[in-house]
Amino acid sequence: MVSILEERNFPVEALRLFASARSEGKTIPFRGNPVRIERLTPDSFDRNIDLLFFSAGTAISREYASIAAKLGIFVVDNSSCWRMEEAVPLVVPEVNSDALSPEKKIIANPNCSTIQMVCALYPLHRRVRIKRIIVSTYQAVSGAGQKAIVELESQIKTLAEGNRVNPVVFPYQIAHNLIPQIDVFLENGYTKEEMKMVNETRKIMGDDSLMITATCVRVPVYVGHSEAVTVDFAEKLSAAEATEILKSAPGVTVIDDPSKLLYPLPILAAGRDEVFVGRIRKDLSVENGISFWVVSDNLRKGAALNAVQIGEVLLQKKFFRGSI
Amino acid sequence: MVSILEERNFPVEALRLFASARSEGKTIPFRGNPVRIERLTPDSFDRNIDLLFFSAGTAISREYASIAAKLGIFVVDNSSCWRMEEAVPLVVPEVNSDALSPEKKIIANPNCSTIQMVCALYPLHRRVRIKRIIVSTYQAVSGAGQKAIVELESQIKTLAEGNRVNPVVFPYQIAHNLIPQIDVFLENGYTKEEMKMVNETRKIMGDDSLMITATCVRVPVYVGHSEAVTVDFAEKLSAAEATEILKSAPGVTVIDDPSKLLYPLPILAAGRDEVFVGRIRKDLSVENGISFWVVSDNLRKGAALNAVQIGEVLLQKKFFRGSI
Repeated sequence: MVSILEERNFPVEALRLFASARSEGKTIPFRGNPVRIERLTPDSFDRNIDLLFFSAGTAISREYASIAAKLGIFVVDNSSCWRMEEAVPLVVPEVNSDALSPEKKIIANPNCSTIQMVCALYPLHRRVRIKRIIVSTYQAVSGAGQKAIVELESQIKTLAEGNRVNPVVFPYQIAHNLIPQIDVFLENGYTKEEMKMVNETRKIMGDDSLMITATCVRVPVYVGHSEAVTVDFAEKLSAAEATEILKSAPGVTVIDDPSKLLYPLPILAAGRDEVFVGRIRKDLSVENGISFWVVSDNLRKGAALNAVQIGEVLLQKKFFRGSI
Repeated sequence: MVSILEERNFPVEALRLFASARSEGKTIPFRGNPVRIERLTPDSFDRNIDLLFFSAGTAISREYASIAAKLGIFVVDNSSCWRMEEAVPLVVPEVNSDALSPEKKIIANPNCSTIQMVCALYPLHRRVRIKRIIVSTYQAVSGAGQKAIVELESQIKTLAEGNRVNPVVFPYQIAHNLIPQIDVFLENGYTKEEMKMVNETRKIMGDDSLMITATCVRVPVYVGHSEAVTVDFAEKLSAAEATEILKSAPGVTVIDDPSKLLYPLPILAAGRDEVFVGRIRKDLSVENGISFWVVSDNLRKGAALNAVQIGEVLLQKKFFRGSI
C-alpha cells in the first residue's frame, strides 16, 4: 500500500502508519524517509487526517472505520466487513466511481477475484446486457497472505527432500496440489469467497438481476489470480466485438493471439497494474455467449492498487476538506 | 499399462511388447518375469494375438491399428487419431460399453479430461437430460508425458536456485504458473484439447444435442486432473438427488462434506482408480443446474486403466476368437 502511494505520486502531505502494539516503533520507508509505525488506539485519529487506508481484519475494520467516519475521515477498507452494507460504496474505479459521495466516508475495496472480473465484464455489460456469469478461479497463494507464500515455498522444499508436509495456513498441502476451497463454507454449499464473487459483482455492476455462479480454487502459484469466465448475453455480441470493447476498456490489457501463443499468464501479470484478458472466443454452448481468461496481480489491482485508485478518485472529485 | 494389466489380473496368456528400434531389447517386468520389447514392424502382428493396446503417436496408431484390424485383432488405441471416426467406438466402460461390437476391431480410448467428466455426467444425464455443460479444467503436467514431469521438477529446482528457466515441453514456464493452452489452437479460438472435450463427450454420451464449452488449463500439479463443471438440466435435479445418483454411479466415489472440509484433491486421487466427485451444489445462476468438482488420476482412469477396462468388457462379452 505504502509503495503504491509512492509509485503513483499520491499527493501525500503527511503519512502516518498505524498498527498493533507488536509493530509499534518499527519503520516503513516512504519517499526515502523512514516512517515510524504508531500504535492504533481509539484515540489515534484526528481531524487533520483526510484519508485512511485500512488493511486489517474485519473486527478492527468495523470498530476503527466507524471512529474515523464520525470524525469525517474517508476510509478505504480492504476487509470484507463493510462491502455488503447498503450505505457503503463498493468501488472499482473503472466501473462505479459514481457510487462515491462526499457523505459516504466508509468505502469498501472489493474482493480480489471480483475486482479483476468486473473490470473485464463491465465494459461488455454496458454494450450488451449480461444475463449469466459462470466463473472458475485459479487463485494464487498470496491471496492468503505472506504466511501462505512461505508455506508454499517450504512445502515445495520439504517434498523435494522426500519429507511429508504439515499444512498450517491451508487445510491441505498446496504444493503440487489444488484446493477447491477458499474461505469458509456456507449453508448453500458455496464458500464465502464464491459468494463474495456473486454478491459483490452484482453490487459493483449495479445489477441485482445478474445470475452468477463461481467455483474458487487455490492453486500453487505465488502471485496472480486467473479466471475462466463464461458469459451469457441478452443479445448477440461477437468475440471480435468483445475484443474491441476490451481493448479500449480502462485498466484492461488484451493479450490474445493464439497464432503466436499469446494469452495472459500469472507469472507475467505479477507486479503489473493491468487486468489482462485473453482467450476471448464465442462460447460454444449458448447462442449469445463469450468465454475468456482474465489474469491480474491479486496484490495490486486485487487489493492495494484498487484502494489507492479509490483515493485518487476522491481527490479528483475534491471530496476532501480543503487541505489537498 | 503393463502394471495395470498385472494389478487387475487381466487373463493374459502371453504378453508381447512392441516399440520403436530405440527400445528394442529392453525389458519390462510382468508377473515377476522380464518381457523383452520387440521392434514394431508391419509384420509384427499375427493371428495368435487377440488384443493390442496402443499407446503411441497418431501416425503409428493410424498405420498399425489398421494392420491389426485387418488381421482380426482388437485394438484399444490411446491416441486421438481414431476417436471421432464414425465406425470406431469411443468407449468409457461405465458409460457406453454397448458401443462395442465383435466387428469393430479398432476401439478408441477417450481423452483423459473427457473420461473423468463423463463418468460423473452420464449417470445424471440418464436421470434428467443435460442441456449444457461448462467445464474449466486444471490439468496435471503428467498429461503431457514423462518429460513434462521432469520439466516441472527441474523448473522448480532452477527457480529455487534463483535462475531462469528454459521451457521445452510447455510453451512457457509451468512451475508456479498456469498455461491456458493444452494442445494446439484451432480456427475457432479453442484448443484441440477443449474441442476433444466437446466432441468426445457428445459421442460417448450418444447425444449430439449436448451444448458444451470448455477451458483447458495446465497447472503445476504432477498427477490428477481436476475439473470445475457446471451443468444445466432440462428439468429440476437437486444437489441432493445428484449426490445420491453419483454415490451409486459405477467408477465414481463421492467425497463431499464441507463441514469436514472434505472434497476431492489431486494429491489424494493420484494412484487411485476412481473418479472423485465433490462440491456438489445447486448452480446459483440457472434454475435447473448443478455445479461440482471432479478429480481423477489422468494416467490411470484417464488413460491406461480405461483402456484395460475396455479389454475386460471385450472379454466379458466373449468377443475373442476362442482361446480366452
